[in-house]
Amino acid sequence: MNFIGSHILSVSQFKRADIETVFNVADQMIPYANRERVTRVLEGAILGNMFFEPSTRTRVSFGCAWNLLGGEVRETSEVKASSIVKGESFYDTARVLSGYSDAIVMRHQVEGSVDEFATASRVPVINGGDGSNEHPSQALLDLYTIKKEMEGRGKQVDGLRIALIGDLRYGRAVHSLCRLLCLYDDIHFSLVSPPELKLPSIYLDEMKSHGHECLESAQLQSGIAHADILYVTRTQEERFPSKEEADKYKGLFRLNQTIYTENCEPNTVIMHPLPRDSRGDARELDDDLNENPNLAIFRQTDNGVVIRMALFALILNVADQVEKTARDVNWYTAGRFSSQ
Amino acid sequence: MNFIGSHILSVSQFKRADIETVFNVADQMIPYANRERVTRVLEGAILGNMFFEPSTRTRVSFGCAWNLLGGEVRETSEVKASSIVKGESFYDTARVLSGYSDAIVMRHQVEGSVDEFATASRVPVINGGDGSNEHPSQALLDLYTIKKEMEGRGKQVDGLRIALIGDLRYGRAVHSLCRLLCLYDDIHFSLVSPPELKLPSIYLDEMKSHGHECLESAQLQSGIAHADILYVTRTQEERFPSKEEADKYKGLFRLNQTIYTENCEPNTVIMHPLPRDSRGDARELDDDLNENPNLAIFRQTDNGVVIRMALFALILNVADQVEKTARDVNWYTAGRFSSQ
Amino acid sequence: MNFIGSHILSVSQFKRADIETVFNVADQMIPYANRERVTRVLEGAILGNMFFEPSTRTRVSFGCAWNLLGGEVRETSEVKASSIVKGESFYDTARVLSGYSDAIVMRHQVEGSVDEFATASRVPVINGGDGSNEHPSQALLDLYTIKKEMEGRGKQVDGLRIALIGDLRYGRAVHSLCRLLCLYDDIHFSLVSPPELKLPSIYLDEMKSHGHECLESAQLQSGIAHADILYVTRTQEERFPSKEEADKYKGLFRLNQTIYTENCEPNTVIMHPLPRDSRGDARELDDDLNENPNLAIFRQTDNGVVIRMALFALILNVADQVEKTARDVNWYTAGRFSSQ
Repeated sequence: MNFIGSHILSVSQFKRADIETVFNVADQMIPYANRERVTRVLEGAILGNMFFEPSTRTRVSFGCAWNLLGGEVRETSEVKASSIVKGESFYDTARVLSGYSDAIVMRHQVEGSVDEFATASRVPVINGGDGSNEHPSQALLDLYTIKKEMEGRGKQVDGLRIALIGDLRYGRAVHSLCRLLCLYDDIHFSLVSPPELKLPSIYLDEMKSHGHECLESAQLQSGIAHADILYVTRTQEERFPSKEEADKYKGLFRLNQTIYTENCEPNTVIMHPLPRDSRGDARELDDDLNENPNLAIFRQTDNGVVIRMALFALILNVADQVEKTARDVNWYTAGRFSSQ
Repeated sequence: MNFIGSHILSVSQFKRADIETVFNVADQMIPYANRERVTRVLEGAILGNMFFEPSTRTRVSFGCAWNLLGGEVRETSEVKASSIVKGESFYDTARVLSGYSDAIVMRHQVEGSVDEFATASRVPVINGGDGSNEHPSQALLDLYTIKKEMEGRGKQVDGLRIALIGDLRYGRAVHSLCRLLCLYDDIHFSLVSPPELKLPSIYLDEMKSHGHECLESAQLQSGIAHADILYVTRTQEERFPSKEEADKYKGLFRLNQTIYTENCEPNTVIMHPLPRDSRGDARELDDDLNENPNLAIFRQTDNGVVIRMALFALILNVADQVEKTARDVNWYTAGRFSSQ
Repeated sequence: MNFIGSHILSVSQFKRADIETVFNVADQMIPYANRERVTRVLEGAILGNMFFEPSTRTRVSFGCAWNLLGGEVRETSEVKASSIVKGESFYDTARVLSGYSDAIVMRHQVEGSVDEFATASRVPVINGGDGSNEHPSQALLDLYTIKKEMEGRGKQVDGLRIALIGDLRYGRAVHSLCRLLCLYDDIHFSLVSPPELKLPSIYLDEMKSHGHECLESAQLQSGIAHADILYVTRTQEERFPSKEEADKYKGLFRLNQTIYTENCEPNTVIMHPLPRDSRGDARELDDDLNENPNLAIFRQTDNGVVIRMALFALILNVADQVEKTARDVNWYTAGRFSSQ
């Protein structure tokens, strides 16, 4: 694909070579995200960080990625603040807002809304999540983390053995990750979920058609054995018909250090798209894993910054110029990143 | 008027020469808003973008204008976030906040609140809308758009034939625009509204006293013939005693491509202060006009950026210095602006 | 204490020498806060300004202080916007957010929350207020103001006579100020409050154990005589069991110009942590004091900016570099600050 000026709306846009382009640029961004170097390559550029659904993590991550390239961020963080409540169409909102910024990140709870918005926008749009549909930068950061963790263990993504655990039915992050992994070779999927929350067949069929191994199970202990990566998910409460319905599945597949030690191979990586639910009856990933060096969940969010920097740099065509305006960081930063 | 250090609170502050000063500086801002050039003239300056009433468009437009001059923005976007709920006076709020920034934009639903605030502020204040009272930058961007569109057609503001359509009673934007047009010569107003939503006589009398022609009508088709500009407005629901009362007038004067073709002269410009209501029963400007090149509504919002840049540059006395710190844009921007 | 890389969580961290370090750096920040000079020392650095409880003043003050050092601000201003509502622990929130910024300011209504957050954070955290517990930068700016005002009158903090007036039971600002004043010599406290809202004995005992004079009284007129500083507080409605309970004490100790003139020594300084309640039945500081040059309440908030700049500069170890990247301000700033 040609990144320059294009929208990033769906993981379906990416071929394997595109992903490798993103990951190579992301690697170049590490010294900046890690606060060793400062670049001003986007000094004077403005990001419209338009979150029409509450979010702290993703909103701040995108804003931070833009700031790290030297640009400014204008922001909205709730639907009430918008002209949309006065009956404005996505078309109008997009035409107007795209006159204010050089790129836009948009999150909105309506599926397809970001596509509609992008069609009318005069500047590149990145989908920051449209309901249960797409959230491509999350899938990219997950895959980037898998690649990095595998490389740290002398392996690669091809041949990966991954266990996907929990709510595989409503989990947008899981769906997109499955899509991206289809672009790689010889993936072994262990799909662990309650029968009612199984991975939809549209994804399962696609994975099988690419020749990947897919084993479904409702049993955590056997499902996580022989995996390189455990990808644990939260029950997506907000996508269920009712809270009561969602609560039935809360805490069903809780991973803790004992279960990990007894069932997993050494150095099995633990991932989660976050936030994890840490309330007593839910907690799908126990706090006793926090000191486990294989817990990669915060390396995932750190990696989100460099992935988003890479996407911005590619669509605005400044990847080659980042170093030109760079210098060493002059303030205290010791011990900042757990990442890498 | 002397712009340096002054508040911008009302369209009544402006004489024709002042408006021309603003428009000349706005013209200089086009390469920056259009992302051909970057300036850092306000690098280190801080805008307090204080919106005590929900707004996305206007808030982001002001913030973007400041960023385009190189400055930083600190922001509030809702009344709940404020000390005002703990009984703080506008005087105190103004004294405190004006210690944090180099200029303030304020929106508040209470009429006269921004005047009261400005009196106590130690830095220049721009009124971003105080209830149904004033919103001077909207009126300036409307007039600037009229001037630009007329010039593109070999005409000028003097001698303008303009049809004002819809809710002329509660529409703040219409009122302020009428005030500004009084400063020009030989304006022909066609005022099209339901009898109950006619332009208040205070404005009508002022227009007539300046020798302008004012024809009132409740008939869309005849009202829009022979106009250079159609200025269509939304029913200002939020100003009506009740939603039911407002709904009576929704969709009364709907302009679409057929009506336009049958009644208007070629190249008649279509304007709207936005947001336009695109819900089925309301839509005062039909979507089928979106491809009409005379639809100037997004050129209006684009023009809002340069008008706000001009106001900031004038009150902070940096208009002459903008180019000194400027350079060419180094990132992808092709196809960004529909404006001009 | 060693400031570099450390959290600022409580006034208890500070010894007298530490406070003097902060105040010396704050003094160096005056030309920047006063818009005579611009520095870019933190250009490229990002502050996570995380306010999980509504606040305009404190949030904007911290953000402004960071901007004045040249850095960028990413922000949250309400708990709803947060993953915390999805059951995320402070540990996780801190791990994630500390990957996005170079320092974090956090406000949260839960006492102790900021400590818990700081323990997990990978970057320095400043407590911006955790419920009724701590808000150290407020105490520091109050003490800095006292020092400045005393110096302007040829006096110093040692030997200070200060009247604390109003809700001394729930007022977080008063408690922290008392703690800090214990580090100085020979302070004379006049504690004026309704019997039910007396200063808690934990503070009183500490003050006495340092040899300071503490006189308690329920009588305003006699309590404010012979004071150098009057420190007036708002009834902390939100800390009371009910609004009715709080209302009983509203307006009990109202200071106005007449009472001031009749009872105070010339040039007695009037302070207040703000916001002051200006509603008719409350107003603890009457508007007729607004022209009194001894009213220092807006000098306090101005001083808050330089104190926060100093804290940032110290924990990020750039205090010595501020001037290196500095230049004169090039925009209009006349008459900006009442401070000094």
